[in-house]
Amino acid sequence: MGREFVEKEKIVESLNWRYAVKLYDASRKVSEADWKLLEDAMLLAPSSMGIQPYKFIVVKDPETRERLKSVSYGQTQITDASHLVVFAYKKTLTDTDAEKLIDRIAGVRGTSRESLADLEASIRSAAKKAVDGGYVETWNSRQAYIALGFLIETAAMMGIDATPMEGFDAERYNEILGLDDHAAVAVAAVGYRDAENDWLAPLPKVRKDPADLIVHV
Amino acid sequence: MGREFVEKEKIVESLNWRYAVKLYDASRKVSEADWKLLEDAMLLAPSSMGIQPYKFIVVKDPETRERLKSVSYGQTQITDASHLVVFAYKKTLTDTDAEKLIDRIAGVRGTSRESLADLEASIRSAAKKAVDGGYVETWNSRQAYIALGFLIETAAMMGIDATPMEGFDAERYNEILGLDDHAAVAVAAVGYRDAENDWLAPLPKVRKDPADLIVHV
Repeated sequence: MGREFVEKEKIVESLNWRYAVKLYDASRKVSEADWKLLEDAMLLAPSSMGIQPYKFIVVKDPETRERLKSVSYGQTQITDASHLVVFAYKKTLTDTDAEKLIDRIAGVRGTSRESLADLEASIRSAAKKAVDGGYVETWNSRQAYIALGFLIETAAMMGIDATPMEGFDAERYNEILGLDDHAAVAVAAVGYRDAENDWLAPLPKVRKDPADLIVHV
Repeated sequence: MGREFVEKEKIVESLNWRYAVKLYDASRKVSEADWKLLEDAMLLAPSSMGIQPYKFIVVKDPETRERLKSVSYGQTQITDASHLVVFAYKKTLTDTDAEKLIDRIAGVRGTSRESLADLEASIRSAAKKAVDGGYVETWNSRQAYIALGFLIETAAMMGIDATPMEGFDAERYNEILGLDDHAAVAVAAVGYRDAENDWLAPLPKVRKDPADLIVHV
């Protein structure tokens, strides 16, 4: 009980070390083993009902990255970071999504679909409510940001830089990546900072005064 | 360069160890030192333009937590977890938000407001665009989910449980907590699992097949 996995000082140190890198060292690549771990972190992020209503598109192809940069205000992180992940949320939820999730639960836990009937009904109902209520896109897109957080924090713990980005033309991203039932909502550039040349690297991190952010009731 | 803060195996181990606890051990409390670290993690989470358009409401008062539980389908995590955080996003963004951020940057970095004039203009412009475009609430609420991710992952690294929750009546939360310019969007219960009695504790974690989630381009 109460197992502590990681030295606490190192968590805070890594979160203070990280910043939204503007200039990546294009010559440095994240190793395959490290990248696998970062994909695991995104996979393991929680989501509402466990439905994972998104895809993570890892863009390696240099030409595609150039095209994406051209609709991202030319930000160099898009092409110069070692890896690029586009977070795309699912634009709707249907009974099929519920069905697939139940299939997966049954498979992984070795349990019958019948025993999961109540769960399936509640997932279908929540999905339908979100669609009918017009908030399914908002809801799904928010879930993607938990995974974005997991990616950024995990990278920081590993001494790997990550820049969350929203400054891009999402419609053009969808076209370039051939997305139709998903929509791009955020990007993370991942790699290694060019600390000597990035103007932001030496500047102190700015956050609100905790008293303006955290309220105790 | 390339400092690694945390043993990689421990990151994956902690992310696999975590799950959305259904039953907390109400007798076990997160220490003040550990809680401070979790608040630091939320504070250090990145947000679009660094504007941190949210508040984190830490609810200790048992009576308030009972009231919140009554509008959260009676879920016991609301009262039984050691700590409860309500994530509330800011419902709009104004020139004042931009101004406060610039004041803070100038203060922390010891630079003049004048030198930040371009940045201030771009923040004002982005905020106005979000308000005029009708997506400011969606945008701000998404940012809160990055911080939710940071809280959950950091807790896991420390061997502390956290349950992200959306199953509650947000309108009633706003009333109970006296929120007006902010709106509750997610909750995290934080504490220690009652592993012996939580039905979910022994079940394997279910995630999509990575091939259905992660696309390589």
